[in-house]
Amino acid sequence: MIKLVLLRHGESEWNLANRFTGWKDVDLTETGRAQAQQAGELLAAEGFEFDQAYTSVLKRAINTLHITMAELDQLWVPVTRSWRLNERHYGALQGLNKAETAAKYGDEQVHIWRRSYATPPPKLDWDDERNVYGDRRYASLSKDQIPLGECLADTVERVMPYWQQVIEPEIKQGKRLIIAAHGNSLRSIVKYLDNISDEEILKLNIPTGVPLVYELDDDLKPINSEFLGDPEELKAAMEAVANQGKQAQNQ
Amino acid sequence: MIKLVLLRHGESEWNLANRFTGWKDVDLTETGRAQAQQAGELLAAEGFEFDQAYTSVLKRAINTLHITMAELDQLWVPVTRSWRLNERHYGALQGLNKAETAAKYGDEQVHIWRRSYATPPPKLDWDDERNVYGDRRYASLSKDQIPLGECLADTVERVMPYWQQVIEPEIKQGKRLIIAAHGNSLRSIVKYLDNISDEEILKLNIPTGVPLVYELDDDLKPINSEFLGDPEELKAAMEAVANQGKQAQNQ
Repeated sequence: MIKLVLLRHGESEWNLANRFTGWKDVDLTETGRAQAQQAGELLAAEGFEFDQAYTSVLKRAINTLHITMAELDQLWVPVTRSWRLNERHYGALQGLNKAETAAKYGDEQVHIWRRSYATPPPKLDWDDERNVYGDRRYASLSKDQIPLGECLADTVERVMPYWQQVIEPEIKQGKRLIIAAHGNSLRSIVKYLDNISDEEILKLNIPTGVPLVYELDDDLKPINSEFLGDPEELKAAMEAVANQGKQAQNQ
Repeated sequence: MIKLVLLRHGESEWNLANRFTGWKDVDLTETGRAQAQQAGELLAAEGFEFDQAYTSVLKRAINTLHITMAELDQLWVPVTRSWRLNERHYGALQGLNKAETAAKYGDEQVHIWRRSYATPPPKLDWDDERNVYGDRRYASLSKDQIPLGECLADTVERVMPYWQQVIEPEIKQGKRLIIAAHGNSLRSIVKYLDNISDEEILKLNIPTGVPLVYELDDDLKPINSEFLGDPEELKAAMEAVANQGKQAQNQ
């Protein structure tokens, strides 16, 4: 039996402002930093030891991981960053808050985007200043790989090759991993591990900064999974995320 | 022409207490964190961009790098950690302050250790609680590789294979690197780059938290090297390190 820890980044500046964040590289709030520290405390209390860490190329996840690992006194553990673990790309919605989105596209359309696994948001124009093409950190991506707006199905499609080709082999070697990432890149992994349907996965709200611990068998099938922490606090955190999700689709 | 940045970690808790630190994993002080931030500001003001970062497996260097890269807004840059970039291992001196060392070994012996390139400190007994054998982060080292006390020549001997086999090939590929490490692992690199004699290298005091920028030609020969920052502040910082060096051999 091997354990795997998934950790969604703590509250970010745009979570707080209720804006679609996506690939915009905003930082954690003070609350977000405190959440990351608490995640470290929870993992330390359970005696977790890691051999390898993964994160995205976005600072809200990188900083969450750093704070958590510092609290665990395991900053020496190797960290691999990948754009494939980035948040879902929200296309032309990126940067808009709930009121702006509803005013621009109408409540019904927002409802469809929120409920649909395969309906992408409006794409960015290639010339939009939000296009990440030309950002050094994405220099390894071909033009075709640069996202201009993803539905959750698209996010799953770019996360899973990384899971299968990079992360799974590490777990099979017996390495104990922590993956600090984003609401929708983690949904992609959870969908695969727990074999969750396209419809049901949208209802799953992963709270920010709470370690989700999987116990896997030798074939990497889940034996058990649970969030660490006080059940009452956890319930409140999950409700907070669900409510936020109603406003800005988990960002 | 390619640039390489070497960065000694900011002030640590044991720098402040004037103890031989070596492989003891102590954290930065608030001053040390401020130094790391200032290093980031200096690099940002000059428009430095990095493709890859290296550091040791000790948190004072890892945190210095993280703070510097956060200030540069380049936290996404890949980071590789290696024990080969750790500080010199001070053997049985580790943890002692100047007064304790002099009382235990005599002023003359301390003077010899301070001035000698090839005289090791007293070795740790294998059973000493300071022996890192069994620490997970050093699990890849054979028993023979576990240091029990290094002279600077020993440190050079374990740093240089990493320089030649890992770092040099990256530079030759055109990658722009930052290496956040320790007084004596960085001395090892500077000794090699600038072809400094065994005697002279001991007189070189690298200030904490000040970026040292090398310009290298295609054969990785230095064209120029300089510390970033205000010359007056720099002079004061180098004198402070030299004086500290008089007390506890650059730790």
